Amino acid sequence: MAKTVALFLFVYVAGIVAGHGEYRGKETVSVTATLGMPWPMPQQYSSTQDLFTINRNAFKFRATGQSCDILESAFFRYQTIIFGLREEVLKFHPKLRAGTLTELDVNVKNKCDRYPYLGMDESYNLTIAASGAILNSNSVWGALRGIETFSQLVLQQSTDMFSVNGTTVVDYPRFQHRGLLLDTSRHFLDVTIIKQNLLAMSQSKFNVFHWHIVDDQSFPYTSNNFPDMSKMGGYDSRHIYTQDQIAEIIEYARILGIRVVPEFDSPGHSQSWGKSIKDLLTKCYSGSKPNGQYGPIDPSLESSYGFLAKFFAEIGKVFPDHYVHLGGDEVNFDCWKSNPNITAFMKQKNFGTDYAKLEEYYVQRLLDIVSGVNKGYMIWQEVVDNNAKVKPDTIVEVWKGGYQAEMSKVTSLGYKTLLSSCWYLNYISYGTDWPKYYSCEPYNFNGTAEQKKLVIGGETCMWGEYVDNTNVISRTWPRASVVAERLWSAQSVKDATAAAPRLEEHRCRMIKRGFPAESVNGPGYCPQEYSIPV
Amino acid sequence: MAKTVALFLFVYVAGIVAGHGEYRGKETVSVTATLGMPWPMPQQYSSTQDLFTINRNAFKFRATGQSCDILESAFFRYQTIIFGLREEVLKFHPKLRAGTLTELDVNVKNKCDRYPYLGMDESYNLTIAASGAILNSNSVWGALRGIETFSQLVLQQSTDMFSVNGTTVVDYPRFQHRGLLLDTSRHFLDVTIIKQNLLAMSQSKFNVFHWHIVDDQSFPYTSNNFPDMSKMGGYDSRHIYTQDQIAEIIEYARILGIRVVPEFDSPGHSQSWGKSIKDLLTKCYSGSKPNGQYGPIDPSLESSYGFLAKFFAEIGKVFPDHYVHLGGDEVNFDCWKSNPNITAFMKQKNFGTDYAKLEEYYVQRLLDIVSGVNKGYMIWQEVVDNNAKVKPDTIVEVWKGGYQAEMSKVTSLGYKTLLSSCWYLNYISYGTDWPKYYSCEPYNFNGTAEQKKLVIGGETCMWGEYVDNTNVISRTWPRASVVAERLWSAQSVKDATAAAPRLEEHRCRMIKRGFPAESVNGPGYCPQEYSIPV
Repeated sequence: MAKTVALFLFVYVAGIVAGHGEYRGKETVSVTATLGMPWPMPQQYSSTQDLFTINRNAFKFRATGQSCDILESAFFRYQTIIFGLREEVLKFHPKLRAGTLTELDVNVKNKCDRYPYLGMDESYNLTIAASGAILNSNSVWGALRGIETFSQLVLQQSTDMFSVNGTTVVDYPRFQHRGLLLDTSRHFLDVTIIKQNLLAMSQSKFNVFHWHIVDDQSFPYTSNNFPDMSKMGGYDSRHIYTQDQIAEIIEYARILGIRVVPEFDSPGHSQSWGKSIKDLLTKCYSGSKPNGQYGPIDPSLESSYGFLAKFFAEIGKVFPDHYVHLGGDEVNFDCWKSNPNITAFMKQKNFGTDYAKLEEYYVQRLLDIVSGVNKGYMIWQEVVDNNAKVKPDTIVEVWKGGYQAEMSKVTSLGYKTLLSSCWYLNYISYGTDWPKYYSCEPYNFNGTAEQKKLVIGGETCMWGEYVDNTNVISRTWPRASVVAERLWSAQSVKDATAAAPRLEEHRCRMIKRGFPAESVNGPGYCPQEYSIPV
Repeated sequence: MAKTVALFLFVYVAGIVAGHGEYRGKETVSVTATLGMPWPMPQQYSSTQDLFTINRNAFKFRATGQSCDILESAFFRYQTIIFGLREEVLKFHPKLRAGTLTELDVNVKNKCDRYPYLGMDESYNLTIAASGAILNSNSVWGALRGIETFSQLVLQQSTDMFSVNGTTVVDYPRFQHRGLLLDTSRHFLDVTIIKQNLLAMSQSKFNVFHWHIVDDQSFPYTSNNFPDMSKMGGYDSRHIYTQDQIAEIIEYARILGIRVVPEFDSPGHSQSWGKSIKDLLTKCYSGSKPNGQYGPIDPSLESSYGFLAKFFAEIGKVFPDHYVHLGGDEVNFDCWKSNPNITAFMKQKNFGTDYAKLEEYYVQRLLDIVSGVNKGYMIWQEVVDNNAKVKPDTIVEVWKGGYQAEMSKVTSLGYKTLLSSCWYLNYISYGTDWPKYYSCEPYNFNGTAEQKKLVIGGETCMWGEYVDNTNVISRTWPRASVVAERLWSAQSVKDATAAAPRLEEHRCRMIKRGFPAESVNGPGYCPQEYSIPV
């Protein structure tokens, strides 16, 4: 393109900024947003002052390598995300000047996978130059991540006219597991909300939806084999997920390159299971009599394992991801201790009074069942804390305080590890709280290089006690994005002050894209605000 | 109505409850909602086991006394709020059984006022019995409050069938000023959001919208006389309120019986005013030279008062309420101290080095200006704390910590007082925080009966640093309702444990009515959840 044109355009953009900036001093807005900067920050990123214009009626994505439904759907989606709804799609403009960009060539080397998986290749290279805009990736997953980055570089200048600077990006994730947990047991979340959240996740390059689908409070998973579990254990018939809805969520996530890892937490956190499955939960005793309360799953009964085998055989089929999260957290031993049948079972097994051994026995049998249906598993840290022996390829999720010591311990035992302790978004507080999440570093523990390699990522968690359809999106975003950057970008990208203007832009971009992403940097405004239907 | 029918219906309703309740134990939901209980609690409330059915196609409100646009619009509004959209409005059902309710007779004694005002009569009596349903009130404002109560007593049983128990309510507010503050300067709020908030307010019987419309950060008020104030002081042209929009908000509030009290805070909190009004703000000095910073309004210049007179003459016309809030909080004296012209002015006026006297001088002249346009005023507590003499009918708003001593002091000086210190909703924290707001008692200070009488109410505040269109409704509701009850109901209605199930119902009712009112009691669900458009 002609250099003069590029220069003219750059000045034009700067003029727009100054127009707002002249009455936007330090005293009025806390953080001034960047313009056209990506979030999370790519591993290598540089831009030039060359500015390319894009007429939205004349731009298209083009697959120059492998393609498939995932890529085609991304092309379709991002046309709208970047350019909005066009009156005429791909109207032909025969006389476009030099200095314009009319396509992004997306060159995927390998045949598409059907589902995203742990360890998938998400790397990509993106070049925007006078010679054209090219996105290269080995896999379709890398293409998805690269198209998102491209979309964040493009700025709207007028109704039809957009612009993008000359840019070179070499990018890949720092961690292979970048998850977000939602809890649909404490409060039910509509399918529309879960899908909205998945779309938001993809725009921060998250790749795992950890679906804490059931818990003590309710059991919204509709089982094919045990339909009474949701009928009796769900809050009511309007607060359950049908098999069709679950398939819809998995498919939506797949298209976005997001794995769905369901969690069926046991032996604790399973009160809702007991509403329908007879004798599954331990009867708690007061003295010599059952007191009407129930504890964790009864590990002394063969029937429990019979049920679990049948149940997880189904789960293995319903959820395509290789991993299922088996929970294992916060098992209270009091009820087990009160139950005479369990006391007898402990004696028979020579467990003495060590109830952790009983838990290990349960967990071991559960893991064998799940291995038997050819699934890998994730567990919360307590399983390892209680010295239960688990398979070497188990993924242990660290969630309690004092995570540094725990990360040392779990990795010294040779387990793959995920960190979530410092990323509990549900614990809100007044003001700008995101730097707290941003400062958390998964490698911040004592351990060998070998141990550090076992850290495969982390998860940010929005537990459901105080969020539901009304506020889960606004409370999660853009705070979760902060974690996404620490999990994707280089370890050195950790300066909150430097990140704030980019985060501000990211929030406003999310709002422009329709998400009610809340204010996190204090007073200010977005060029386009969130609006509700009148 | 026939007793047998009533009994049958009551059992039917109880059956529905037990149907949900059988798998809804203590361990699943934190608080079980009441059914058909009002919020805030009326002064006197009793219900019978007589149950009346209402067919939504055959029910109407009927004005049997005075009527006007306010009442007619309430009738129209509540048909939809209670019954939803009907396929055929007022379809004729000739053979309704005894035991049904076909109308609410609303008997307003006095001619309607055009605008709500401080001290308006909001009392009403409501009787639902076999002889009919009658709402009596002196004023249309009482009728509005009573219709809201009626709407909260009605429960939906099936598509067309609703029910209400026999009920007697004698009701009036404990305090005459029950306000909610929104701040549209730190973040702009859309007109649709402000109207949604006003509608929510009316459903908790709030009667004052304290509109903190401008502040340092931005000046979204479009002035007729000084159009540059929003042009230069607003965030941008999309973040301002036109005169038409302001009129729309005032009219919407009027129809709901809500006063709109705008706040134009000065001499501090006025950085955005200075963007357009030359020489209004004090020039701050470093040594002998202006340093480019600006302080509060310059009280030493006659031009400041000339501007204020013209500005508040306009405000007096635009906002119909008798009161305007003049702010007066957090005036920083440092800039005044640095400015040599002000030093000279202090000398000339014999103020010595007492800058509180300078503030008093400013405030006194401002109050005279505002009195001159026949308005009453509200101010923040600092004006009195700094010993400025104000007119006896000034309303002082206590907002700082240690409010008990301040309430004692302000009332001992004979001023009418509002409390807001303990009701700052913007300060969020994790978990069930509403009992903290619920426990605050405006009479909880040392003072005579005479002093207590000067407490005319309070305000709950949602300052705008961290809320905007994305989250202001969910974060405000139903937490604000908690304050509404303390301001409306009897002083003895203060037990949070007793209130929780009613608050749970109130939240779910708000959701059913379309507000994204967030979860405040921990795990649980509403029969109908909030949903977003797909």
